[in-house]
Amino acid sequence: MERIKLHIAYDGTNFAGYQVQHNQRTVQLVVERALSKMHRQEMKVYTSGRTDSGVHANDQVLHFNSPMTLDCSSWRNALQTLLPKDVKIMHVEKVDESFDARKSAKEKVYRYQIINQREYDVFKRLYEWHVIKPLSMERMRSAAKLIEGTHDFTAFSASKSNVKGDKKRTIKSIDIWEEGDGRIIFEVRGNGFLTHMVRIIVGTLVEIGLGKKDETCITQALETLNRQVLGLTAPSHGLCLWKVIY
Amino acid sequence: MERIKLHIAYDGTNFAGYQVQHNQRTVQLVVERALSKMHRQEMKVYTSGRTDSGVHANDQVLHFNSPMTLDCSSWRNALQTLLPKDVKIMHVEKVDESFDARKSAKEKVYRYQIINQREYDVFKRLYEWHVIKPLSMERMRSAAKLIEGTHDFTAFSASKSNVKGDKKRTIKSIDIWEEGDGRIIFEVRGNGFLTHMVRIIVGTLVEIGLGKKDETCITQALETLNRQVLGLTAPSHGLCLWKVIY
Repeated sequence: MERIKLHIAYDGTNFAGYQVQHNQRTVQLVVERALSKMHRQEMKVYTSGRTDSGVHANDQVLHFNSPMTLDCSSWRNALQTLLPKDVKIMHVEKVDESFDARKSAKEKVYRYQIINQREYDVFKRLYEWHVIKPLSMERMRSAAKLIEGTHDFTAFSASKSNVKGDKKRTIKSIDIWEEGDGRIIFEVRGNGFLTHMVRIIVGTLVEIGLGKKDETCITQALETLNRQVLGLTAPSHGLCLWKVIY
Repeated sequence: MERIKLHIAYDGTNFAGYQVQHNQRTVQLVVERALSKMHRQEMKVYTSGRTDSGVHANDQVLHFNSPMTLDCSSWRNALQTLLPKDVKIMHVEKVDESFDARKSAKEKVYRYQIINQREYDVFKRLYEWHVIKPLSMERMRSAAKLIEGTHDFTAFSASKSNVKGDKKRTIKSIDIWEEGDGRIIFEVRGNGFLTHMVRIIVGTLVEIGLGKKDETCITQALETLNRQVLGLTAPSHGLCLWKVIY
């Protein structure tokens, strides 16, 4: 048996998220199908963590165990041939059995892209959130500082969240920068994330940037654990799992 | 009656081309539907020229006549609300009745984008052609010079082409440049184009750039009018109607 670490990118537009769900096209489903076809037996893959419906990945990490002995470039070519175009193998590595895509992950980096101008971009509409009214970078950056650190992030998770137990997480940093042509990028790094956590962070920072909310809502949410005091959940299509650090 | 000139952009991915066709989702169909809804009567739009299934537009031009009297920004907002997200109104102008989107066009500019490296880009796969083997810029630029000028372009058109009559056209220029990250852009300017003409030009230049064909095939095609001596028709999704000059 060999343990293989797969780095993949995907366009989340036509997927009902990462995780297998009954009768839905998911990333896990198409990867397991490709592997099962190669192996002529049912194969399972393990991920660093799932992503929601519509969320993209620039560098998601998976692992699986295989009785086959191929070199990494053969793995890459064979799998890519069996995958649809919206999932791309970026890198293949052999790892020892102590590696686990989820448990070994030290940090995750997400990026969220906004186009902040009157008109949206038809060719990027599936990859960025269109916010028409001007956002204050200063207000958003100041509020982001209040989120950084180790907190109970219960208020920053979907009420339907099925994460059991401890909701204490560490957000290492939130960086926000402009990239020209009205683009604003949010980069959120942390040791783990609850369901919808990045989208609630971005949705809240945007409402603060628009002047609809005051940054004190964040301190309040971290104290009261009340989702209601925060802003909206930003739409999934602006979010991208940027990389996983081991 | 007022004559309105519309500049639109569209993502051709989910359209069966520009022109209305039975039971197909086309750009003309969705624009005429939006206009008909606004006017509560059947409306017709006229274009600078149709684009094939899968071809995009950065700045396509249409015109129509309307009994309504709205200012340009109201036209823009009202129409955009009624259109799907993959068609974007870029600009609205009032013109006099001598303006005709097709007949008044002096020149059209198309761009074709290629990613020339081993791996494709999952987020741009719908907007660029993936060519793995290295292309010679020098060979392609030299061959492009042979296409420029006024010629009978019969060989550069689809055999199913329904353009009747004269197939003499003028290609004003073909510029080819690199944009970093393996991207190569072809910009073709001309006074008019036959069905598949840009795609046959690009497909042929690519085969020349790969060393599969010699540039003499171009001179031969222009003399013999034989489609067979040229290269393949490049896929539609790399092509974009960049602008129409009046």
